Amino acid sequence: MTMRVLAFMAGVTAALTAHADEGMWPFDNVPKAAIKTQLGVDIDQAWLDKVRTATVRLSGCTASFVSPDGLLLTNHHCVASCLSNLSTPQKNLLADGFVAANRSGERQCPAQLADVLLSMEDITAKVNAATSGLNEKAANEKRKKTLTQLEQACEEASAKDKSTGALKCESVTLYDGGQYFLYKYKRYTDVRIVFAPEQSIAAFGGDPDNFQFPRWCLDMAMLRAYDNGKPAATPNHLRINFAGPAAGEAAFVSGHPGSTERLLTVSQLEERRTSAPLSLLRASELRGRYIQFGKRDEESQRIVQDPLNGLENSIKVRRKQLDALLNDKLIEQKTRQENALRSAVTASGELATRTGDPWRDIEKANEAFDSMELPFTFIEGGMGFNSRLFNYARALVRGTTEREKPNTDRLPEYADARLPRLTQQLGAAIPIYPDLEKLTLSFSLERMREWLGPDHPLVRQLLSKDSPDSLAARLIDGSRLADSTVRSALWKDGSAAINASTDPMIQLARSVDAEARAIRKRYEDEVEAPVRAATERIAAARFAVFGTRVYPDATFTLRLNPGSVQGWKEGGADVLPFTHLNRAFERATGAEPFRIPDSWQKVKSQLDMNTPFNLTTNNDIVGGNSGSALINARGEVVGLLFDGNIHSISGAFWFDTEKNRAVAVHPAIMREALRKVYRAEGLLKELSGGK
Amino acid sequence: MTMRVLAFMAGVTAALTAHADEGMWPFDNVPKAAIKTQLGVDIDQAWLDKVRTATVRLSGCTASFVSPDGLLLTNHHCVASCLSNLSTPQKNLLADGFVAANRSGERQCPAQLADVLLSMEDITAKVNAATSGLNEKAANEKRKKTLTQLEQACEEASAKDKSTGALKCESVTLYDGGQYFLYKYKRYTDVRIVFAPEQSIAAFGGDPDNFQFPRWCLDMAMLRAYDNGKPAATPNHLRINFAGPAAGEAAFVSGHPGSTERLLTVSQLEERRTSAPLSLLRASELRGRYIQFGKRDEESQRIVQDPLNGLENSIKVRRKQLDALLNDKLIEQKTRQENALRSAVTASGELATRTGDPWRDIEKANEAFDSMELPFTFIEGGMGFNSRLFNYARALVRGTTEREKPNTDRLPEYADARLPRLTQQLGAAIPIYPDLEKLTLSFSLERMREWLGPDHPLVRQLLSKDSPDSLAARLIDGSRLADSTVRSALWKDGSAAINASTDPMIQLARSVDAEARAIRKRYEDEVEAPVRAATERIAAARFAVFGTRVYPDATFTLRLNPGSVQGWKEGGADVLPFTHLNRAFERATGAEPFRIPDSWQKVKSQLDMNTPFNLTTNNDIVGGNSGSALINARGEVVGLLFDGNIHSISGAFWFDTEKNRAVAVHPAIMREALRKVYRAEGLLKELSGGK
Repeated sequence: MTMRVLAFMAGVTAALTAHADEGMWPFDNVPKAAIKTQLGVDIDQAWLDKVRTATVRLSGCTASFVSPDGLLLTNHHCVASCLSNLSTPQKNLLADGFVAANRSGERQCPAQLADVLLSMEDITAKVNAATSGLNEKAANEKRKKTLTQLEQACEEASAKDKSTGALKCESVTLYDGGQYFLYKYKRYTDVRIVFAPEQSIAAFGGDPDNFQFPRWCLDMAMLRAYDNGKPAATPNHLRINFAGPAAGEAAFVSGHPGSTERLLTVSQLEERRTSAPLSLLRASELRGRYIQFGKRDEESQRIVQDPLNGLENSIKVRRKQLDALLNDKLIEQKTRQENALRSAVTASGELATRTGDPWRDIEKANEAFDSMELPFTFIEGGMGFNSRLFNYARALVRGTTEREKPNTDRLPEYADARLPRLTQQLGAAIPIYPDLEKLTLSFSLERMREWLGPDHPLVRQLLSKDSPDSLAARLIDGSRLADSTVRSALWKDGSAAINASTDPMIQLARSVDAEARAIRKRYEDEVEAPVRAATERIAAARFAVFGTRVYPDATFTLRLNPGSVQGWKEGGADVLPFTHLNRAFERATGAEPFRIPDSWQKVKSQLDMNTPFNLTTNNDIVGGNSGSALINARGEVVGLLFDGNIHSISGAFWFDTEKNRAVAVHPAIMREALRKVYRAEGLLKELSGGK
Repeated sequence: MTMRVLAFMAGVTAALTAHADEGMWPFDNVPKAAIKTQLGVDIDQAWLDKVRTATVRLSGCTASFVSPDGLLLTNHHCVASCLSNLSTPQKNLLADGFVAANRSGERQCPAQLADVLLSMEDITAKVNAATSGLNEKAANEKRKKTLTQLEQACEEASAKDKSTGALKCESVTLYDGGQYFLYKYKRYTDVRIVFAPEQSIAAFGGDPDNFQFPRWCLDMAMLRAYDNGKPAATPNHLRINFAGPAAGEAAFVSGHPGSTERLLTVSQLEERRTSAPLSLLRASELRGRYIQFGKRDEESQRIVQDPLNGLENSIKVRRKQLDALLNDKLIEQKTRQENALRSAVTASGELATRTGDPWRDIEKANEAFDSMELPFTFIEGGMGFNSRLFNYARALVRGTTEREKPNTDRLPEYADARLPRLTQQLGAAIPIYPDLEKLTLSFSLERMREWLGPDHPLVRQLLSKDSPDSLAARLIDGSRLADSTVRSALWKDGSAAINASTDPMIQLARSVDAEARAIRKRYEDEVEAPVRAATERIAAARFAVFGTRVYPDATFTLRLNPGSVQGWKEGGADVLPFTHLNRAFERATGAEPFRIPDSWQKVKSQLDMNTPFNLTTNNDIVGGNSGSALINARGEVVGLLFDGNIHSISGAFWFDTEKNRAVAVHPAIMREALRKVYRAEGLLKELSGGK
């Protein structure tokens, strides 16, 4: 339940050399020869094109088309927010699961999108030409404007191109500025839930088992993409091979790894190590508040479940990342690699002149960041205003102002290319729970006061006559932003309506906006600009020294990774790559999160206890690969990625060939469950090529 | 509200060189000449003897006799547990404060002790003779037996000595085994609460202001020691000088600093750095659970307040300690110091042979600890069973078994010298709150499952058919150990009664005891024994190289520290050493923790707004110094230590002369409050030498 993209990981890196199964390769740069050598598998362009167009990007996850009628296979935890949003006090879809009786029973997930990557255009030369000769700060601004311009031009061109229809064009930065691309997507905005099992079996073992193996999770779900109210036609789809893979068999992962930071400089790693505890401590306290809130009653438990799951997952990830950062061996290896590159640069006179000392520049930028980290995190980063209503309010306040500026003068998240998505999000009828909002907002105000100090001017402004509790209650109770029609009306009416609004949350967002923008600008000029300038020079130096045997760090864009079905050795003992159904029943305690649902208990005698359940591979994956298909050499789905083992978490910084393993649902348990537990014969028929 | 001893800091160190105001000196080794040179003050033996016998050790705190009738001055936060224990749903003494109308209104604090140090006996030679020639493991066991024997002999001798009467004899290890002492205390077991202000003014600013300065806290309280039901006669007491000290004036702190770790080896510091996040994350989550629990209703808020205060204080301490450990400059300085000592040892052939390589031995012991840290922490350390009822149960289960063994064969905490205290604790009628017990127990069971894993045998044994919630509920609801008479009866009846008990908490403590003892034994043999053997050799080497210009690390034993009233520079700006009453009113928000209580608001017009409130000094203090008097050259009390500034927390590892400051209550605000707010004329008279 773990491999969703974690937003906080956005970083500044690029990766260097590839071990056997290491590397997240863009589809235009797949090392076919190495795959042939290492795995004995021929990957041709047709295979790549089919896999690429059958792979779908969801919010923070991946999915694959598995029928010609737009049917998507992904993880249960990738649709958990959809299930939670569609639930009511009377019907808890997260707990109870969901099986659409037929297509008319498929229910739209609010604000869910599905993107298919159609093409990639290299725009590095255009971007570099635009920033050439500018100083760091000016280059940083010009670069953003140029990317906005190119996205806009691309979307306008596609809208006029009848062969593609209107596409979403997104700029992509690879190698931290070594390359810039436009990625062009076909976007589905109507995505419906088709099937989800009960969370008890989807996430059997819950947080204690998360990132562990052996494992028994049916972490699967099915969605369907719709086009103009009809199931999308998806001739390029993948078939599921329910027999699954053999041990040692080659297996590919096509998906959207969210973020890795494998070539951070040593000073950046040390900066991460020092700042990691702050967010972990906050997250841990919030976990405690959530858990205690859930004990109030069943309804509180229901509404807190989805945010709690996400939080616990991110805590485990960040905790193990901190462990990795505290591992001296990591710092030693990174120091060796950095020194090797620096020596090579120094040895080449021309390159040395061109490169300068970007490592020192980054160190200086880190020092500048130290002095602004806390206000940036709490005020612009929003960690002092943890509230969905505040997020709406900020988007409305900023978006209406920005929208009135020329496209390239805006904050990038309000560029024209981004506005349809924002309009959809503001208008989506998603339930807001006032008590939970008060909890998160009061919590974050209290921590802002703790960390910025009670005498910080903004803290004084907010809390000179209020406690965090009383302020949060007044804001949440007084705001009407939970109503999507209110939000849509404000959005439509623009900045005049916003400025006239007496909604207290709008007023709050207005009152902190100037200070938030100021600290952001300071961050962009004093940290982002010099770091980006430095990482561009490091990327150029690395290309010059090591050539093209490199893969870029993950950026939540489409990648292919080659690997094979493998267990590993833990404390000298073999961990076998397959688990089976029988052990799940033996291990169940009857109490959450080790409860096998009634639907399974009822048919227990009919189930084949030897059915393979989960499996491990040595694929190189990271958050965002959740829901990725595991694909064999013939282009069949032989598994559904949903997690990594505990060693995989350090994959943010390096790849441990011996121990880093991906964890997938075996297709045999999918079939067994669909057939005998959920009696989803229609779906099975569709998956088997019938209608 | 912060300088109480934190139990987790028990460590293995010794300290080296003294800066101007650095050093926590045992009373038999006070550097009088240096004090004369640096502060211009003559400290003679009479001054030392008077101050020593006027200084009192409380549980985790310090206090001072301030009248001939046993009146004790200490911090409000040192009596918070007493106030909490004496409170009821109808009367919240923590919130409302307490002023005894007269002596018969003074109320006994359950389980509070007050110890006065009468003498110190050096037993280093005896201990070394006993362990001479033994291997590490045997020496470790023999050392403990010897210390138990010497304590017992000392107590037996004092009981027959009419000049002293029965004393408490406690062995004290200084310089991590460089010296062993017997400290002999007169013990008062009847200690009553006399005066405490409202927590709102005692801890004005609450957790946000904790460890900050400027500050406005009346963190004072008064207790009285009783002897045979009468106020104790304390001719050796200190007078309060309500005028307070001048800026720059010499000021001494006499008290019980709990623990410093200033000469950990570098590998020990790195081990601390790696393991610190585990406990911090647990503490942060518990903080969230406590806070959310307190929001249920007023009574929940009342019962959670005292444990929450303590937890938040420890989080801030450990967080800033982690920051210090992540500061490269700390590790660099410690590496330099360690290398200097090692070079000196190597240069001296005989010493080199005698010393060996204890630094490497400690590294190896750390590696051994890595493999047992989690089970040790959760099972023997009790972090998996966070419950006061469980603590009672474990004490009963172990204590009754151990009591039947010869004194020197027991676990040291059950030696004869320790049993009267344990008997008192088991019999003290302290309220237990079942809902809070369930919270902490369920929380700790859940985290034990997370960290040891659901398949750990003990976790399976406890949670194979239970959730942490259901198990905690069954244990707490089913146990009768909240009743002090039940505990006392079991304690009296001994191990047969314990073995026959069907109390579920007793059963739990019984069922985990063998495993807990096993992991403890492994820890003692594989970690404690080699570390102690190594630190004894390091201490010997340090004495040999640097002579006696050293002070031992803090061990919650009596120390004197010389310093003076000083502010400091923060970001280039002066922080002045005194605050005044007017600013407290300006800064109040009306909402906790920035609320000035009604008792003060009512008499606001009568108060002198220029009254000094808090002050800072450059004394070297640490948790356990809470409640220590600040004493001038004439032996008068001129302040009441209650906190350090934020830089003082790194004092666990080194002393920052420029920025490390202690924070005290000014005596002028004590008088102003006692006179005008609390109208405690009787107390003021007693403090002024009247009756």
